[in-house]
Amino acid sequence: MTSAIADSLERFVRECVIPSESAFAAEGGVDTARSSTLTGLQDEARERGLWNLFSSAHPSAALRDLIVLPDLAELVGLSPILAQAALHALNPDALVMELLTALGTDEQRDRWLPRLTDGAIASGYCMSEPDVASSDPRSLRMEAKRSGDGFLVSGRKSWCTGASTPGCRFLVVVAVTEPEADPRRRHSLLLVERNDPGVKVVAERRVLGYSDALRGGHPDIEFQQARGQLLGAAGDGLSAAQQVLGPARMLHSMRLVGTAERALGLMTARLGARNVGGRALASSDLWIDRVGGARIDVEGIRALVRAMVTHPDRALAESIVKAHVPGAVARIVDLAIQAHGADGLSSTTILADLYAHARSLQISDGPDEVHRRVVGRRELRAR
Amino acid sequence: MTSAIADSLERFVRECVIPSESAFAAEGGVDTARSSTLTGLQDEARERGLWNLFSSAHPSAALRDLIVLPDLAELVGLSPILAQAALHALNPDALVMELLTALGTDEQRDRWLPRLTDGAIASGYCMSEPDVASSDPRSLRMEAKRSGDGFLVSGRKSWCTGASTPGCRFLVVVAVTEPEADPRRRHSLLLVERNDPGVKVVAERRVLGYSDALRGGHPDIEFQQARGQLLGAAGDGLSAAQQVLGPARMLHSMRLVGTAERALGLMTARLGARNVGGRALASSDLWIDRVGGARIDVEGIRALVRAMVTHPDRALAESIVKAHVPGAVARIVDLAIQAHGADGLSSTTILADLYAHARSLQISDGPDEVHRRVVGRRELRAR
Amino acid sequence: MTSAIADSLERFVRECVIPSESAFAAEGGVDTARSSTLTGLQDEARERGLWNLFSSAHPSAALRDLIVLPDLAELVGLSPILAQAALHALNPDALVMELLTALGTDEQRDRWLPRLTDGAIASGYCMSEPDVASSDPRSLRMEAKRSGDGFLVSGRKSWCTGASTPGCRFLVVVAVTEPEADPRRRHSLLLVERNDPGVKVVAERRVLGYSDALRGGHPDIEFQQARGQLLGAAGDGLSAAQQVLGPARMLHSMRLVGTAERALGLMTARLGARNVGGRALASSDLWIDRVGGARIDVEGIRALVRAMVTHPDRALAESIVKAHVPGAVARIVDLAIQAHGADGLSSTTILADLYAHARSLQISDGPDEVHRRVVGRRELRAR
Amino acid sequence: MTSAIADSLERFVRECVIPSESAFAAEGGVDTARSSTLTGLQDEARERGLWNLFSSAHPSAALRDLIVLPDLAELVGLSPILAQAALHALNPDALVMELLTALGTDEQRDRWLPRLTDGAIASGYCMSEPDVASSDPRSLRMEAKRSGDGFLVSGRKSWCTGASTPGCRFLVVVAVTEPEADPRRRHSLLLVERNDPGVKVVAERRVLGYSDALRGGHPDIEFQQARGQLLGAAGDGLSAAQQVLGPARMLHSMRLVGTAERALGLMTARLGARNVGGRALASSDLWIDRVGGARIDVEGIRALVRAMVTHPDRALAESIVKAHVPGAVARIVDLAIQAHGADGLSSTTILADLYAHARSLQISDGPDEVHRRVVGRRELRAR
Repeated sequence: MTSAIADSLERFVRECVIPSESAFAAEGGVDTARSSTLTGLQDEARERGLWNLFSSAHPSAALRDLIVLPDLAELVGLSPILAQAALHALNPDALVMELLTALGTDEQRDRWLPRLTDGAIASGYCMSEPDVASSDPRSLRMEAKRSGDGFLVSGRKSWCTGASTPGCRFLVVVAVTEPEADPRRRHSLLLVERNDPGVKVVAERRVLGYSDALRGGHPDIEFQQARGQLLGAAGDGLSAAQQVLGPARMLHSMRLVGTAERALGLMTARLGARNVGGRALASSDLWIDRVGGARIDVEGIRALVRAMVTHPDRALAESIVKAHVPGAVARIVDLAIQAHGADGLSSTTILADLYAHARSLQISDGPDEVHRRVVGRRELRAR
Repeated sequence: MTSAIADSLERFVRECVIPSESAFAAEGGVDTARSSTLTGLQDEARERGLWNLFSSAHPSAALRDLIVLPDLAELVGLSPILAQAALHALNPDALVMELLTALGTDEQRDRWLPRLTDGAIASGYCMSEPDVASSDPRSLRMEAKRSGDGFLVSGRKSWCTGASTPGCRFLVVVAVTEPEADPRRRHSLLLVERNDPGVKVVAERRVLGYSDALRGGHPDIEFQQARGQLLGAAGDGLSAAQQVLGPARMLHSMRLVGTAERALGLMTARLGARNVGGRALASSDLWIDRVGGARIDVEGIRALVRAMVTHPDRALAESIVKAHVPGAVARIVDLAIQAHGADGLSSTTILADLYAHARSLQISDGPDEVHRRVVGRRELRAR
Repeated sequence: MTSAIADSLERFVRECVIPSESAFAAEGGVDTARSSTLTGLQDEARERGLWNLFSSAHPSAALRDLIVLPDLAELVGLSPILAQAALHALNPDALVMELLTALGTDEQRDRWLPRLTDGAIASGYCMSEPDVASSDPRSLRMEAKRSGDGFLVSGRKSWCTGASTPGCRFLVVVAVTEPEADPRRRHSLLLVERNDPGVKVVAERRVLGYSDALRGGHPDIEFQQARGQLLGAAGDGLSAAQQVLGPARMLHSMRLVGTAERALGLMTARLGARNVGGRALASSDLWIDRVGGARIDVEGIRALVRAMVTHPDRALAESIVKAHVPGAVARIVDLAIQAHGADGLSSTTILADLYAHARSLQISDGPDEVHRRVVGRRELRAR
Repeated sequence: MTSAIADSLERFVRECVIPSESAFAAEGGVDTARSSTLTGLQDEARERGLWNLFSSAHPSAALRDLIVLPDLAELVGLSPILAQAALHALNPDALVMELLTALGTDEQRDRWLPRLTDGAIASGYCMSEPDVASSDPRSLRMEAKRSGDGFLVSGRKSWCTGASTPGCRFLVVVAVTEPEADPRRRHSLLLVERNDPGVKVVAERRVLGYSDALRGGHPDIEFQQARGQLLGAAGDGLSAAQQVLGPARMLHSMRLVGTAERALGLMTARLGARNVGGRALASSDLWIDRVGGARIDVEGIRALVRAMVTHPDRALAESIVKAHVPGAVARIVDLAIQAHGADGLSSTTILADLYAHARSLQISDGPDEVHRRVVGRRELRAR
């Protein structure tokens, strides 16, 4: 059955998503919160049984099959943002669906999950804080005080992805609820309604030039006595988040293999089409060498990702992959940009979007340095 | 006197321009065509005698003094876009002012130059064409036919910087007017009024996520029998453009030295301010090593630029500098981004803007590959 | 059974070969033609059933089992030269044994193979020519003229590996015997006795400082009417050589994975043992980061090599691996050198030997550029 | 006058030294302690007034003229080892001559200096110790005990350059003589006769494959109650050594600019001479690009070295240059090796020697990491 899904997904991505990219870009691309192109693709995905494909809500539960997952993820990575949006696999909603499913009470699930799963509403995720290195989540310090059967949340969160999307109805917030506990057991996840009067969006920011309105931007939020409800057990916040973020990191990198293939495909097409001084660039030794190098790099990235999927030490394997893949893919995309000249920089091609996506992943979910440090310390201890 | 200008410019950049960057960013930054922050800075620049500083219109004619120029340009490069905009030194207007001054008839100059110099109107520059490698300007093929005492221009130009700015009144267009001549003598510069009915903007594009509305975007234009007037002699187009673009390339790189200094300064400030695990990042061996490497790179770039200023072979020196500096500076800015974590990617800092600026210069005015090729061929011939 | 061999090989390499490295180095290492340390190791290998392990002469025929081969080869790569020498797996003998086995007549095999297999005699291999790019074997031009039932060989060969070893009894020589045929069918392999009066060694050379006397150096040979005998069919020379060299390339890279592991292991040991300013280097962020990066690189190289083993297009997979692995491993070894300071450069450690070995493989058996070109052209054609 | 010296030196290097390289290599090159080619060059240098050119013993005292020095040093760097040996400018003798001149008593100078200056005898230099990071000289711990009017030296030194040369008559040894003083004031320089019965050479080592017999190798020495005499004041050892080593570092880098020029020149010559597939490599886009990049790098290195000569902070400038130049030059030489194929690795060309020379300088006189750290810390403090 999984191979039927792979076929179906491949047709969807190649026949529907990629051909829609320029219409999507003309509507504003990732900087627009509403795109009829996207809505059409989402309807198509539902019809083809691909809606929520990478979520536990999908009947095939593709996410759990480690053998077929890299193939599926690569297909999505060919057009990573638009395909994920079309499949309803974009964060924060994808992440929040998993958290609600795994940790929510019946009441919480009943209230939010069906509409979130369906795409009728959206969610936001609030973890980072200003002046705290996100690479060390234990140092997150915003507190929530118990009040009645819930909590009152006060303080500032930054990079609250999703919070500015029009359909956003609630936020998942990481806050210190057990200040006296061991640092790994201090934080809880809280559900906060988006329209709580204590929730105030105070700063929007662009990321490498993009507003990312499509996924609700990345604003700061000032919480002022906002009411929150526990999601999962008190003190479990960091470990619950980690349990969902770990596989998400691996999935990011699997998709990026497809992104690198896309960039390489665009590069070879361009080199074949463009003449300089009466000679196709594709017959230039320099570009043949670079294409050869890029193909070798893509095969190396793919092989590493697939080898690490079955590595016995999951955390180490995730760090190896996360430290290597986004940067390597960003360099391939950058080379494809250079092969396109000015068009590569511009919204005429999808390359600048792909670059921003890959480059951002060298920082989000733990910067390269943090993951290399994890790997290096493990190696030195193993000595 | 030049040192008085340098002092004045330094105060202006450090006391006025840099402190205005966040207000400018809040107004939309390079993506806004109208910024009151910018208008205020421009007024201030006029008052301080710095308006048009790098243009031949400025009494000090700083542009011609090769000794002081690197110092001045570095100061501008500390905040390259906003400072250039404040000084009225941004292309295409800076370029077009020089072309009009050097090549315009009295009538042409009287008509456009005073208002352009004053900033009351703006200009556009149309050189690139779709499907033609800009690195080989002789292959530009849009034609203009003689008609009366002027020309009728028909065809498509791409990357028409400036053409979408609200104040744009005229365009400088490179077109083939002497199709039978030697390839180096076929093109002429033509002046075309922006509101000519045959001038139609047909495509806008973003560059690495930015619309660049501040300098009028980079749209395509479809010319349909638009009326053009010779600027300079028929057949002189490419050599005239080269004469102005050559020094401009050098100037770009001189400014980028300041841009690299700015990024390095932001990086060290951030590393000093940010703690991870109770220890300032500034005391991490890894970041000390990277800062050391960045300082060495900045000194290397600066030394190269200054050494090449007096190189006897101007064209070779321009290619050496243009092939090396933008990429080297983009890497330093990229490192500063990484040192800032997510803030480095975001519009909270100026780093993403600086990156897009430096990275674009690896392609505009001749991609790195073209300039390396010039240098490599010269070397192999010199053998 | 293969796993028993792997265990046996691992014990041999770790308990016998590696502990013998310094005694071998004290005898002159790769620069000595006679080493009692090596003789002892060879006796030990025979006793343990590991002699000729990677040759078709070995009962297990390990070379043909693609699943276990990478594991075995990695073990050898931990001490690549000494282990290969101990196992009788060093070129040119390893290569010549395969050629004789595959192509030799009964008479040729009877005459040379038993003694060669046993290590009683040695062989040389003569392919390269001065002023001919080895990357294009079809351009090799030394001719051999038919004479009686054999050939008379005249001309100069360079890089005749093995020819100066004391036990060398015969040479395999690539020569044009069918000058009128298609360029791919012009060359034959010829057997020439080493003591033929027409065989004259005319130049010895060192390679990155080493004489490589252990494997008979890399002299030039001037052939003057030396008598040669066909090995295999006339005109089959290049394809026969290719059939043996292709898998050899893959095997080189498999071994280099072990070489990279060795370098990484030496690096972490040194960092743990060395204090600077009262602090172990192993606790320096900079070196932790580099160790992390090296581990990631090793995993990437290993994953690529193993993925390419089962790639359907063998020639492409060989080029991907050959273009990537030696350079990547040379960089890891170079980093380990730097971690050791002056000791890393010196014969106190094995690192300089490992570097020379890996670096040389970026050129021998086709330089990186040639293999990247193969990959790039395939990619551009596949478009 | 300096320009006359530059002319004379240029003729000597180009007309005498470079053409002698292959004869020198045939005699064993840097691995031979006695070369008649070298003796001939030395005689020629004396005759032309170039003997001891870079020493304070030379009438022109070229070493002190910072303007002409880079030009002279570049010329020497074209053939760095042979030219230095021919001019009597090779360490340790060059270093020891300066130390004796600056610090020796009349008696010490009378005894050693004339013969050392003349080349009749040679010297050795003993600073490094096993298990002590040379990058932190204050941690050197071999002690010398006062005894009569001298000292008794016991302990082990490593990397005693010069100690194994046949003419070596005395050693300069760094030892702790004031164990109670501040760490910067504990060490003294001592003169020890080479034939003292307490001087025992215990280990020879090769460096990247070379024995460096030409300059007396780099053995370990075990001192057993060897008699030493103060050179300079007690406690001044480290500062005296630093005063001579600092400029030497700068001089090393100046020479390396010439080494890079040499490698680039060999590379372009080879590319012009070698055909692959009927086309000169010099017309390959890939190699044109690499040659262009190498030329740009050479100009960048040269400009940095020359800019740093006049930098007000000498120690910082030395670290900037020392951290950057050897590695950058090693990469250029490595590229030239690749352009030569197997010949580049071999003693057929001088490239492998040049590589070993440049690569070693990334470690000797302070590894790159130490100098980058100096620069990085300065930058972070300057914030």
